[in-house]
Amino acid sequence: MSARILDGESFAAQIHREAAARATALTRKGIIPGLVFIRVGEDPASRAYVSRKETRAKEAGISSRTLVMPESTSLPVLLKEIDLLNADPKVHGILIQSPLPSPLPNDVVYSRVLPSKDVDGFHPVNFGKLLLGDESGFLPCTPAGILEILRLGGINTRGKHAVVVGRGQIVGRPLAVLLARKSPGADCTVTLAHSSTPDLPSITKQADILIGALGRPLFLTKEHVKPGATVIDVGVNRISDSTNPRGYRLVGDVDFPSVQSIAGAITPNPGGVGPMTIALLLSNTLRAAEDAIR
Amino acid sequence: MSARILDGESFAAQIHREAAARATALTRKGIIPGLVFIRVGEDPASRAYVSRKETRAKEAGISSRTLVMPESTSLPVLLKEIDLLNADPKVHGILIQSPLPSPLPNDVVYSRVLPSKDVDGFHPVNFGKLLLGDESGFLPCTPAGILEILRLGGINTRGKHAVVVGRGQIVGRPLAVLLARKSPGADCTVTLAHSSTPDLPSITKQADILIGALGRPLFLTKEHVKPGATVIDVGVNRISDSTNPRGYRLVGDVDFPSVQSIAGAITPNPGGVGPMTIALLLSNTLRAAEDAIR
Repeated sequence: MSARILDGESFAAQIHREAAARATALTRKGIIPGLVFIRVGEDPASRAYVSRKETRAKEAGISSRTLVMPESTSLPVLLKEIDLLNADPKVHGILIQSPLPSPLPNDVVYSRVLPSKDVDGFHPVNFGKLLLGDESGFLPCTPAGILEILRLGGINTRGKHAVVVGRGQIVGRPLAVLLARKSPGADCTVTLAHSSTPDLPSITKQADILIGALGRPLFLTKEHVKPGATVIDVGVNRISDSTNPRGYRLVGDVDFPSVQSIAGAITPNPGGVGPMTIALLLSNTLRAAEDAIR
Repeated sequence: MSARILDGESFAAQIHREAAARATALTRKGIIPGLVFIRVGEDPASRAYVSRKETRAKEAGISSRTLVMPESTSLPVLLKEIDLLNADPKVHGILIQSPLPSPLPNDVVYSRVLPSKDVDGFHPVNFGKLLLGDESGFLPCTPAGILEILRLGGINTRGKHAVVVGRGQIVGRPLAVLLARKSPGADCTVTLAHSSTPDLPSITKQADILIGALGRPLFLTKEHVKPGATVIDVGVNRISDSTNPRGYRLVGDVDFPSVQSIAGAITPNPGGVGPMTIALLLSNTLRAAEDAIR
């Protein structure tokens, strides 16, 4: 038996179509939803990632552009640009691509974006609302995308045991909180496990829904999985590969062939969580634009 | 065999002594730490609770007073008072006693307090910093007090399995996040269980550290506890009692006599978490005053 595939590309395409319809409705009202990316420096992965997000946004009818700033940009200059975008009524969403060059303090930069334009969901106010259960905030795109995978994949979550492996601030911790909320598509008993968890398989084998967000290549195998469980692979890890022109390839946290033989449903990687993260960015941007005209 | 008592009164007294020493040091520098309580309406439990906190603060050398506003106070009038206290350099901490009269929106009121004076730790920015792991924020007093009980009680937490029963925004959710942090006094595998958890004993019996924060009187019994576990009782529940002049008495979530027979360590209730919540309020206020002169 082989697990059902939770096809992130197909779910994301559905969200993109909904986004395009919402953008059209806004445009008819005279509002063109606007999204600005800020990229500081020329990190190749960031270039590719921002470019892909910008393309997707344009396809959905969102006016988007990327502000490229040199690696040497000072903090005051970057904050000034953020302030200008905060004040610009044509800009509904602002995304500052991470990682920032190391001299720039993440906390100062990310908390400068107006919470109402923080479509990445990284502002402390939006994280705080997430923890408080206040739905007026923006959710970070990757955890929100995982909830959508479960919803669109028809996975029952209520009263199920979800085990999140990895306690990072962008995925593991917020996702654990979201899965425990008393709301549809959540309401799970949630265990947050991590690098200090002894005997990890004894924990992960309890999971009806298992999330790999640890950042260890191909770490989770069938030894970690209860038969029939739903497995979501968040990992994006580089491993060296001399047969690849780049010298490496990207793999997840889940050893797919091993786990697929025992799981009930599983995300591929790539093609699972990644496309959903972009799709939720578009949803957040449209909500920012819709909120702006209320 | 009977569990060791984690004496919250004695731990709190230790924190009060430290607070008094910090207040003295500040006063020598010409800074009198200042704390203002706002109480809206005449709820008897709120009156008693604010009065006790004010007394404790004064004992520690913190200048404190209570602003009492009528039940009928309008939102603009309350916000104006908060703004005045935000602007007053002699006021380092502001605590708005909950519950507010129902017409007043909690989210608007609590987020009006400057995060740097939010010694209750209820502002979304402080909740966000908690989730992000940014230690510059104020932690909510009850979860922070529970961490101190574990520390002062000499309970090893690293790699242990903590089960938090109850997903409330003030205790359960933030405590689960804090216990999972990669830092001393935490670093637990954490499970957040709640009213939708099926077969609760199968989850709670895995706990090395079990936290009852469900709000169900005497709900947790020895059937829920692994022998030798540490048990922390956060509950404050009213049950009717005709032998009591008030017609009720307060009990926790833990059936103490039953659980004491099997646990390794246990908080009494009252005399466990309650006094620690007040002690941590004083610590937060002193930090606010210390931060203000940096």
